[in-house]
Amino acid sequence: MDSATTYENLSVLENGWFREINTSWDGFSLNLKVEEVLFQQKSPFQDVLVFKSKSFGNVLVLNGIIQCTERDEFTYQEMITHLPMNLHPDPKRVLVIGGGDGGVVREVLKYKSVNEVVLCEIDQMVIDVSKKYLPNMANCLEDPRVTINVADGVEYVRNNPKQFDVIITDAPDPDGVAEGLFQKKYYSELLSCLTDHGLMCCQGETTFLDLPLIKDMASQCKEVFPSVGYAVGNTPTYVSGVMGYLLACNKPDIDFTKPLRRLSEEDVEKMDLKYYTSDIHTAAFSLPNYARKALKGIVNSCT
Amino acid sequence: MDSATTYENLSVLENGWFREINTSWDGFSLNLKVEEVLFQQKSPFQDVLVFKSKSFGNVLVLNGIIQCTERDEFTYQEMITHLPMNLHPDPKRVLVIGGGDGGVVREVLKYKSVNEVVLCEIDQMVIDVSKKYLPNMANCLEDPRVTINVADGVEYVRNNPKQFDVIITDAPDPDGVAEGLFQKKYYSELLSCLTDHGLMCCQGETTFLDLPLIKDMASQCKEVFPSVGYAVGNTPTYVSGVMGYLLACNKPDIDFTKPLRRLSEEDVEKMDLKYYTSDIHTAAFSLPNYARKALKGIVNSCT
Repeated sequence: MDSATTYENLSVLENGWFREINTSWDGFSLNLKVEEVLFQQKSPFQDVLVFKSKSFGNVLVLNGIIQCTERDEFTYQEMITHLPMNLHPDPKRVLVIGGGDGGVVREVLKYKSVNEVVLCEIDQMVIDVSKKYLPNMANCLEDPRVTINVADGVEYVRNNPKQFDVIITDAPDPDGVAEGLFQKKYYSELLSCLTDHGLMCCQGETTFLDLPLIKDMASQCKEVFPSVGYAVGNTPTYVSGVMGYLLACNKPDIDFTKPLRRLSEEDVEKMDLKYYTSDIHTAAFSLPNYARKALKGIVNSCT
Repeated sequence: MDSATTYENLSVLENGWFREINTSWDGFSLNLKVEEVLFQQKSPFQDVLVFKSKSFGNVLVLNGIIQCTERDEFTYQEMITHLPMNLHPDPKRVLVIGGGDGGVVREVLKYKSVNEVVLCEIDQMVIDVSKKYLPNMANCLEDPRVTINVADGVEYVRNNPKQFDVIITDAPDPDGVAEGLFQKKYYSELLSCLTDHGLMCCQGETTFLDLPLIKDMASQCKEVFPSVGYAVGNTPTYVSGVMGYLLACNKPDIDFTKPLRRLSEEDVEKMDLKYYTSDIHTAAFSLPNYARKALKGIVNSCT
C-alpha cells in the first residue's frame, strides 16, 4: 500500500487511502481508507478493483469510480429497484442491464409476483468478483428465477421486444463502457422491450454535479417515452452524496410520486428494507429548486 | 502547498488537497483541491482556515472540518432557516447562535415580517474572515436590522427570556467549542428564550454516520419541548452528503411537515431560493427507513 497505483481516470491508491478522482467533478474527491486490496485487474471492458475498506466493508471500483460499498449499497439498490417496481401493478418479468454485482436482482426477488429476472451484464469479471467479495449482493444470482446473460445490454434489449414489465439499467457513468446506455436510441429500444404499463429506471447521476447531463438524458428520454420522472436519494459514497434515478413509463398518465402499493411497516420489515418506504418514494421526487427549475417542462414529476 | 499542515483532528493540507478527517467517521474523507490558502490562524476558540478551492469557491474550515463553501452553502443556510421560519405564523425577532459567517442571517432577512435579528457568535475571527473572504454571506451583517453580539450563545440565551420567535443554532460539531449547544440544559434555556409558538432549529448532524448522537440529541430535546421534528437535506461538502436539522416548538400540536406559508414560484424567485421550496419542506421530513426506525417515538415528525 505504500506505492501509488493510478487508474485510467487518475484515481489513486496512495498512503493507505483510495482517492476517487473524476474530471466531471474536478477538485472534489471522496476518499476511503484501505485495509487490503483484494483484487485488481483489467477486464476486456474496464479496470476492476476490490478493496477492503476500514469502515465501509468491501468496495467495488470500476475505472477508478466507486460502484458500491457493503455498508451503503442498500441505499442505491433499494431506490433503483423499488421505485419502478411499486409503480407497476403486477411485475412478473424484470430485466436488469448491468448490475453484475447482484444488488438490484436481490431487491427484485423480494416481490412474489416476479417469476423471472434476466441479468444482462457485459463483464463476466464483475460477476465473478462480486460472488467472491460481495456475497450479500451476489448470492441471489443462484436463485432459480434468475437467468444470467453475459452480453451487451443494448443488443439484448434490441433483440427481445415486448418482454419485460420493468427494466432497470444499473450502469456506471456514461464515459466508458456504459456510454450507449445514456442515449435516445437506447431509450427507444427500452420502450420496445417493455410490455404494457412497462417501466424503466436508470441510474440518473447526481443533480449537484451533473445537471446538464441529466437534463440531456431526461430530454432524450422524453422524446421517446410519454412519461418521465426523476427522483433522488442519499448514497454516502457517491460523490456529493446524492444519486438520481431517471424513470419512464409507456403510459402517459402515470403519477410517479404515488406508488401503486403502499408498503406497511410489516411489509418493509419482511422485505428487509433499510432505505425505501412509501413515504420516501413520494419524497424522492421533490427536487431542490435549482434542479426542479432545470427539469421542469421535461420531467413530468417536476412541477 | 507542498509541505503538509496537520490540524488538531488530523485533517491535512497536502499535495495541493485539503483532506477532511474526523474520528467520528473514521476511514471516510472528503477532499477539495486547494488553489490558495487565504487565511490560517488559531483563534482563542479554534483553528480557523480559509482557502480558495479549485471548484467550490472559498472554503471556511474550523478545527479541520469544512463549515461552508461558496458553491454549496445555500443548501445548508436555506434549510436551517426556512424550515423553522415557515413554521412560525409571523416571525419578528430571530436569534442566530453561532453562524458568524452571516449565511443564516442573510436568509432570515428575506422575511419582511422580521424587524430584528440578533447574531450571537463566540468567535470574532469567524466574523472577520467571513466579511473578507465570504462576502456573499457576511455582507448582510451590515443590515440595520442586525445586532451582533460577540458572546457565548448559551449565556446569551440564559439571560434573555421570552425574547425570540425563532432561534437558529448554526453550530459546528459537538466535540469542540459547540459542545454545550447539544445538551438538554441548552434546549431548556432555548425553550425559555422563545415567545409563544416559538421554534428552534439546530444543525442536526448526518443520519448515516451520527445516528446514536442524533437519537441522543432528539431525546434530550423531547424531554424539554412538547414537539420535536427532524428533517434532512443534501449538502455536497458535508461528509456523506446529508445534513440533518433538529427542530422543536413550544406548541404541542404542530405538524412540522406542513409549512404555514406555501411559497409560490414567484415568492421562491423573489427570495432567491436555490434549494428550499414548500415541497422540499414537506419531503425533508421523510427519512430513510433506518433513520425513521431509530427516531420513531422520539421525533413527532417520524411515523
